[in-house]
Amino acid sequence: MTRGRLITLEGGEGAGKSTQIRALDSALSTHGIAVTTTREPGGTPHAETIRGLLLNSEPGTFDGMTQALLHYAARREHLRQTILPALEEGGWVLSDRFSDSTMAYQGYGAGLGRDLIEALHTIAIGTFKPDLTVILDLSSERSQVRLDTRAEDRNAYELLDQAFHDRVRAGFLDIARREPDRCIVVDATLPEAAVTAAIFEAIEDKLGLP
Amino acid sequence: MTRGRLITLEGGEGAGKSTQIRALDSALSTHGIAVTTTREPGGTPHAETIRGLLLNSEPGTFDGMTQALLHYAARREHLRQTILPALEEGGWVLSDRFSDSTMAYQGYGAGLGRDLIEALHTIAIGTFKPDLTVILDLSSERSQVRLDTRAEDRNAYELLDQAFHDRVRAGFLDIARREPDRCIVVDATLPEAAVTAAIFEAIEDKLGLP
Repeated sequence: MTRGRLITLEGGEGAGKSTQIRALDSALSTHGIAVTTTREPGGTPHAETIRGLLLNSEPGTFDGMTQALLHYAARREHLRQTILPALEEGGWVLSDRFSDSTMAYQGYGAGLGRDLIEALHTIAIGTFKPDLTVILDLSSERSQVRLDTRAEDRNAYELLDQAFHDRVRAGFLDIARREPDRCIVVDATLPEAAVTAAIFEAIEDKLGLP
Repeated sequence: MTRGRLITLEGGEGAGKSTQIRALDSALSTHGIAVTTTREPGGTPHAETIRGLLLNSEPGTFDGMTQALLHYAARREHLRQTILPALEEGGWVLSDRFSDSTMAYQGYGAGLGRDLIEALHTIAIGTFKPDLTVILDLSSERSQVRLDTRAEDRNAYELLDQAFHDRVRAGFLDIARREPDRCIVVDATLPEAAVTAAIFEAIEDKLGLP
């Protein structure tokens, strides 16, 4: 059996990741692909518990390194229990966030730097990387406007200031520049259907469809 | 103000760590030392939540690397929120387990090896080490006998088999051989008062009393 593919959606708050995952799930399913949709932090019962610790705490409770350690503990669980089993059965996995979020938020946003996060990545999950990463790019101002229209409470990351979110955005764009084969950047201000079409084109182009 | 000292007690299950911490707390307090007693995993509210995840799960839920990541996330919190503030105020801290437990359980017991755990230690807490580490040495057979007399349920580590606990014990002894200035090994089968006396002698000898 052909191993499946992992596609990760990355970007700041309010960039439309979960909307696009639903659209891609539907589009890939019509091509006969078995799709698993999942998210980080989370994706297994224990990893969801770690998610609660990370997102429901007051901002500043954990420093960037403790956050990075918790994200990678949750990620290793997610990979072992959810992602790898699905890929090995030939399924495709769509994840709302993955390792690039830790690089962008803790490496760039919290200022830990690339080297520490890369070293932690290697210790925690070795050389594993997604097959395709879609970065939904949105300015921190536009992100803020979208968050303001949401009903739910802000999580610990959403409560951080604009300068932090500007560093996160710059981080995602830098990641994409460094790994152009794996990453595409899509303008998140485009209409939803245009974003979906751009992502789908990249999937056909970079991964091919079965 | 003189910085305080961190003394860690290490060893397998049932070796008498908590009993000795109570005795040392009392003995050091009579010398006018402000003592904080604490434990790992745990020692802060969030780190205690991580403790619950680690110890109340079925054995095999997390693999060794996920456990190591969770232990170091909890440890960094413990260090930042509890240990370092106490040391900076001149207090002494007695901790029931610390980083040598991760080396012994995950590095030796689970077979991850010294290099991975050392690299994780450096990423998570840099070069920080306890001032004195007391390894209470007990064979896994004797440990098992002591656990059998306890009323409470076994935690995830206590449920592991004797071969695992033999590797953990050998790991602790190897750590002590590699760092003889920082570590002492005390025979945990001695009477409690004799164990306390041996530890107290090492404290006077290696750290001095104020």
